[in-house]
Amino acid sequence: MPQQDRAYATREAILHAAAEEFDRLGYERTSLTAVLARTGLTKGAFYFHFPSKEAVADALVERQSELWARMRETWRLRGLDPLSALHGMFAESADRMAADVVLRAGVRLNADREVGYPGVPNTHLLWEKLVAAYVFEAAERGDLRPGVDPEAVARTLCSAALGSRLISSATTACADFPERIREVLGHVLPSVTSAGWKLSGSQTASETP
Amino acid sequence: MPQQDRAYATREAILHAAAEEFDRLGYERTSLTAVLARTGLTKGAFYFHFPSKEAVADALVERQSELWARMRETWRLRGLDPLSALHGMFAESADRMAADVVLRAGVRLNADREVGYPGVPNTHLLWEKLVAAYVFEAAERGDLRPGVDPEAVARTLCSAALGSRLISSATTACADFPERIREVLGHVLPSVTSAGWKLSGSQTASETP
Repeated sequence: MPQQDRAYATREAILHAAAEEFDRLGYERTSLTAVLARTGLTKGAFYFHFPSKEAVADALVERQSELWARMRETWRLRGLDPLSALHGMFAESADRMAADVVLRAGVRLNADREVGYPGVPNTHLLWEKLVAAYVFEAAERGDLRPGVDPEAVARTLCSAALGSRLISSATTACADFPERIREVLGHVLPSVTSAGWKLSGSQTASETP
Repeated sequence: MPQQDRAYATREAILHAAAEEFDRLGYERTSLTAVLARTGLTKGAFYFHFPSKEAVADALVERQSELWARMRETWRLRGLDPLSALHGMFAESADRMAADVVLRAGVRLNADREVGYPGVPNTHLLWEKLVAAYVFEAAERGDLRPGVDPEAVARTLCSAALGSRLISSATTACADFPERIREVLGHVLPSVTSAGWKLSGSQTASETP
């Protein structure tokens, strides 16, 4: 393997091993020793790639952040109505998190930095704003029931997604997160959508037709 | 003040001061020194009442657990239909948590012990079971829409309540938890209830009539 490929593979192995630990234990309780044991690397080899445990965590947080940006763009290009796009993104996020420990760890690390650390700008409020923009757009198109508050819908969906992730993560390593998130969507959207709205085109690859 | 009353007052002052710290920082990052500084007590006086930080946390967890048991009993005695009782209990819980740091800390400590500590029997799954029992009872009475899965409804409500509490706690010290929990109920119950069900008698004292 050329040296550059080998360096890339080692960096990925470190990210994956660290993700396994961060996902289970969170940032504070993850030890560099445990990460090294998983990879079989020496401390020296580790420090060649990352200056610290924090730098690995930063890389994982960065990676999930890039993925969400790409996912939003992909769904935008599909040209669905905003609530169908939102449904699709929530479902796809859960599917990906159930399948990918690197993503799961990045999401946990990002959320742990925010919830419970007052004073840090709160990621969850940013998510609520982002989701609310879709729901506002739905309201403008007449897809919401009269009287429904788009920001309140965003708060409910984001709260339920956070709670589902935490419970699913603690109990099944997110294996039942896809099912839980679809339950949430199925229990909330009928209450807030107008009679004319219908879910379209938001099935992800993992869903049975 | 008789000695027994003074001992009781000191114990309560410790619980309250510790709750202020636990509520903001969680168990790990709360220091006994900060708790003592809040109360003005010496270490000796503290240890007269509690053998350790853990013992204070245990007392706070115990207190919230007793409160929920009393609240369930109170709502049971009101003889409402199960979904109205559930609505009332969720709303009252949020109202109490917004008003009472001792309760809030107990709930946080209890939940922190569970979520993210795989292997510990999970409080959230117990809550889901408890909530599901009410929803099953509602199904038997015909209060649910045909095809709605009571356990799935319980999962959605418990997830949304957990997520709401965490976001509300991190952003407003639970001040907006009462509003958030009512939004959740208002967004979920219409999707899952039959046309004949109507919320009854579940307004709590804090709600405007």
